[in-house]
Amino acid sequence: MKKILLIAISTLFLACTQKEQRPTTAFPLKLEDLEANRKMSSAMERAFKHYEAPRLLDNELYSNFRYTEVDGFDYNGGDGTITRRDPSKIIFENGKYYIWYTYRNTATEPRGYKAANDTIPSMDWDLAEIWYATSIDGFTWEEQGVAVPRPEKPKPGWRSVATADILKFKDKYYLYYQAFNAPSGKYDPERDAYDICPVAMSKADSPDGPWTPVDKVVVPFGDSTEWDWRVIHDPNPLVHDGKIYLYYKSGLDVRDANRKFWDCWGLVIADDPEGPFEKHPLSPVTNSGHETMIFPFREGVAALIGTDGIEHYTIQYAKDWVNFEIMSVSQLFPTAGGVYCPDAFTDTKNADGITWGLSHFINAGNDWGNMYSKLGRFDCDLSLSVNDPSLKQSNILYPNELYFSRGLSEEQRKRIDDRNKALSNK
Amino acid sequence: MKKILLIAISTLFLACTQKEQRPTTAFPLKLEDLEANRKMSSAMERAFKHYEAPRLLDNELYSNFRYTEVDGFDYNGGDGTITRRDPSKIIFENGKYYIWYTYRNTATEPRGYKAANDTIPSMDWDLAEIWYATSIDGFTWEEQGVAVPRPEKPKPGWRSVATADILKFKDKYYLYYQAFNAPSGKYDPERDAYDICPVAMSKADSPDGPWTPVDKVVVPFGDSTEWDWRVIHDPNPLVHDGKIYLYYKSGLDVRDANRKFWDCWGLVIADDPEGPFEKHPLSPVTNSGHETMIFPFREGVAALIGTDGIEHYTIQYAKDWVNFEIMSVSQLFPTAGGVYCPDAFTDTKNADGITWGLSHFINAGNDWGNMYSKLGRFDCDLSLSVNDPSLKQSNILYPNELYFSRGLSEEQRKRIDDRNKALSNK
Repeated sequence: MKKILLIAISTLFLACTQKEQRPTTAFPLKLEDLEANRKMSSAMERAFKHYEAPRLLDNELYSNFRYTEVDGFDYNGGDGTITRRDPSKIIFENGKYYIWYTYRNTATEPRGYKAANDTIPSMDWDLAEIWYATSIDGFTWEEQGVAVPRPEKPKPGWRSVATADILKFKDKYYLYYQAFNAPSGKYDPERDAYDICPVAMSKADSPDGPWTPVDKVVVPFGDSTEWDWRVIHDPNPLVHDGKIYLYYKSGLDVRDANRKFWDCWGLVIADDPEGPFEKHPLSPVTNSGHETMIFPFREGVAALIGTDGIEHYTIQYAKDWVNFEIMSVSQLFPTAGGVYCPDAFTDTKNADGITWGLSHFINAGNDWGNMYSKLGRFDCDLSLSVNDPSLKQSNILYPNELYFSRGLSEEQRKRIDDRNKALSNK
Repeated sequence: MKKILLIAISTLFLACTQKEQRPTTAFPLKLEDLEANRKMSSAMERAFKHYEAPRLLDNELYSNFRYTEVDGFDYNGGDGTITRRDPSKIIFENGKYYIWYTYRNTATEPRGYKAANDTIPSMDWDLAEIWYATSIDGFTWEEQGVAVPRPEKPKPGWRSVATADILKFKDKYYLYYQAFNAPSGKYDPERDAYDICPVAMSKADSPDGPWTPVDKVVVPFGDSTEWDWRVIHDPNPLVHDGKIYLYYKSGLDVRDANRKFWDCWGLVIADDPEGPFEKHPLSPVTNSGHETMIFPFREGVAALIGTDGIEHYTIQYAKDWVNFEIMSVSQLFPTAGGVYCPDAFTDTKNADGITWGLSHFINAGNDWGNMYSKLGRFDCDLSLSVNDPSLKQSNILYPNELYFSRGLSEEQRKRIDDRNKALSNK
């Protein structure tokens, strides 16, 4: 016992004094000369101890992104009447890739909530259906038509069904999606939200359908004091430990600079695709991410966190599927990407990761007038089986015009001029 | 003593068991309902405990960047014969802003080492001098001419003087810069480097000069086993605790995807501007950053780490001027920015930070043929005294064309097609 106490004390003592130790030699030029216990600055300690590897070249969870236009989708000349957005994960079945997405083909472009009616959409994802397409090579796609149509009023989703994701579980297929019963943009004072769309689900024996709706809310909102009371968006089902792990986005009642509320992602777990889904008590499991791609990686799960929040533009990893750590920072993330993820449902302990997917490109038209979104392809190296040094580069050069296109507002210029004057008068 | 032992043991015990505790209620919708000791996921714990604030809006060390073209600099029609790059910090003296920068005005554009001679430059920073300009408003500049010319051969810098930064110390002015004795690009097999340019210095009683060179190496290279043996670049002097804290870039002998060696930043400290500079034993103090802007912030120092390395595109903070932690991630960083930093030399314990500077834009012309760089202005909100919510946004929308301009190489397309075929044949 005495020995244990001594060890306990020495451990505490070491923890307190270690910060004060300073190496007596300089950091070596070559890594093979690095002493094992050398005291390092915080940054160098992270390089060697926190990250997978000090070099990005060796970091399996770092990549930059390449983008390619895809063939096979018609947008009616880009007049805003047709949109394709929020693609699902991509699966490979029957010798081809399958993808599902939000498809809108309406009388006009989106015109906002006030102008919306039975044929005029409020937002880009209003009056939409879940459609799907297949491809042999991932670049040229054949649109197959509707997978989940809007049901008759007042069934869930009668106004719009959107933002689908796919689950394959015990050789059956499940599409989870957002079911709107009102035009998006209609304000709900109770929830202080504009996008009320509980998660619904349809199931099928084949990826080609037919799809049978399960007419119930699959992932319920939290109660009015809980973090996921306002919305539940972007369901993303994966398989882990024989169960369904479904990640989704909701938001705390905290207003940030760009959005009304603070986007975070939660986790629910179920034994059966129809639920019941149990909410993980450590949710939210991310602190950021309006768009987030989550996929199995090694024994854990990786998250590509795109826009919004304190850890936007990071690639993270949770070995236990709950506690995410930053593994790298990247740029120009796919927006609302749907990944080809061969291990999404294999429940392996050594998932390979991802190398490509489709993402959407919003404002393919203008903000208003002919607003629509289109699908495009991204490629990356977040895969154990691929090693592409060019995708590990971290010195991407952007066109000079891009910088100057982000100029100052009149208000900002006035503040600057005022501060200049104040400085001159000092 | 017994009590202390018990406390020690309980502390260790708590540290081990805490991970297992799970909250029995959901995370609250409103932050005022958050219990003080609630067990959170790693990501949420970072949001509340690691960062300054969970909202980017409240994070004084997060900003996006705006860019503005500046007036007053001629580039001879952009034919590559004139360049301005690597601006210094900006200081305010005599009722105006002063900036120093690398200025090249040569017979031709840069043509590489093999074609270089006494009048043809090898690289964009070959055959250069340190020039300076002043401005009343920070947007329109008046070029004042040379500050530090190239000295006669064989004095240090006879081939080129470049990448200057300014120090004001006890009412005198000091320019630190890289002094080349050979055309940049000449390979030095001993150091395995192409850019051998010890840090030299000139001093003056006024920012308008005249500048007197101190004909010696001010920051010496490490020896051949030490991390800063190969190069010492980008000297950045600040004042802290009555001393000169000078940060500089060197690189470990580790090859990454984009560069020959691993860029890190070190710290040297001196009582006098002429040295001797003592190397901080915890150097390198950053693990990343080909271009890094370092400036006093509150009682510590902040670093904007641009391209290159495992923590590229992060904004970091070191309260003790040595141990940097990530405070935020951002995008489209200024390249080689020189900041207007009112507290660079004030030795305050509550430095205000920065709101603007000039950075360079390389490849204003093409890569080769008419290569040159130009100066432009950036604005940001990394300042305690400014609060601009638009600069705290984290959902910047880039033009769709930008994504698709970063396409796949033929080699990458072949790999993708091969993998498709392999999958189909399974």
